[in-house]
Amino acid sequence: MKIGIVGGTGDIGEGMAMRLSPVFDVVVGSREKEKADTTCRMTEETLKNTGRECSLVGECNQGCVDGADVVILAIPFRHVLPTLSTLHGLEKKIVISPVNPMEKQDFFMFTPPPEGSAALMIQKLLPGARVCAAFNTIAANRWKAIDEELTYSVPVCGDDEKAKQEVMAIVNRISQLQAFNAGPLAVSSMVEALTPLVLNIARYNKMKDVGIQFR
Amino acid sequence: MKIGIVGGTGDIGEGMAMRLSPVFDVVVGSREKEKADTTCRMTEETLKNTGRECSLVGECNQGCVDGADVVILAIPFRHVLPTLSTLHGLEKKIVISPVNPMEKQDFFMFTPPPEGSAALMIQKLLPGARVCAAFNTIAANRWKAIDEELTYSVPVCGDDEKAKQEVMAIVNRISQLQAFNAGPLAVSSMVEALTPLVLNIARYNKMKDVGIQFR
Repeated sequence: MKIGIVGGTGDIGEGMAMRLSPVFDVVVGSREKEKADTTCRMTEETLKNTGRECSLVGECNQGCVDGADVVILAIPFRHVLPTLSTLHGLEKKIVISPVNPMEKQDFFMFTPPPEGSAALMIQKLLPGARVCAAFNTIAANRWKAIDEELTYSVPVCGDDEKAKQEVMAIVNRISQLQAFNAGPLAVSSMVEALTPLVLNIARYNKMKDVGIQFR
Repeated sequence: MKIGIVGGTGDIGEGMAMRLSPVFDVVVGSREKEKADTTCRMTEETLKNTGRECSLVGECNQGCVDGADVVILAIPFRHVLPTLSTLHGLEKKIVISPVNPMEKQDFFMFTPPPEGSAALMIQKLLPGARVCAAFNTIAANRWKAIDEELTYSVPVCGDDEKAKQEVMAIVNRISQLQAFNAGPLAVSSMVEALTPLVLNIARYNKMKDVGIQFR
């Protein structure tokens, strides 16, 4: 299975590439292909130094979409609309949204678009795409700390049951992440709101990179 | 410290009385004092059978408010407005809201009032009260399973820092609950939204009484 990471040279995208490329064929996408190539070379070297093999290629974001079966939108909420307006061919693909619309004043607040969540907005922008929200709460630093296991719970929601099962299977192959079916895409607001919550928990309790576990 | 449980004869309230009364002086409140007395006698007996002593008295809800330093509103969201309209003297008390406004269709959705959350609505109804949200995600069955430790994380939010510290200290004395400062009351929507999320997680993953841990 080929997984494309649109925005794969960003902070979260780079970390995802590190964790996913030893397990799946990964296409790192960026606005400029050279940047994607650089991220791939750096990631390959980092993984090689820890004895891991990986499968990575760099592409422009459109090439990333074209070459992938599953596309992760590893971009900040404010980039979703401009990025998706430049891309085509996402219809019928599985599209994973780890996107969290939020603002920081003194603290982080969940600030969803009129659709109710980033994932619902993406679904509206990409009719036919099999959109799932997943990976919302995992911090970039955790993705990148490849010598540490990721022991978090990952709520996954979406309206296409088969797509959701595939996404959950992907989640469950990464480190010790554990996927949980959180329901249809309508619940994605509650999934996305977890991220500003854990960012506040980290801040007010002097913790780093807080994640969650369901138990 | 005296802790009053308004709605202390409900499912959650009874469980809270079981866990709190071995540690604090607890006033169980109900619309009818006799119901509160019955809950107290039953709770005393249950605790006695497991070798625990407790401090419990039954009162009508107003008597519960009058006799307590800290008041927990252990009532469903739809009862908040009618219940608070019958009570006085909550101003300047610490008021804990474990209330989660939500609706169940095929799944649970967070359905906050115009104020943004139950806790913010309660703060507006009770100017001067030191309102904190806490205990939102802990299921009635977990409260009542007194032979099992509660190993959950409890996000606590509120605008009065001293009140919040007191509430966190209360949380930390119950079983193995761990309080986390989640920020000001403005974030209570994100805290309350956790509950429909974990109810959905339980439902879609065939789990029971799902709780959360931050780590």
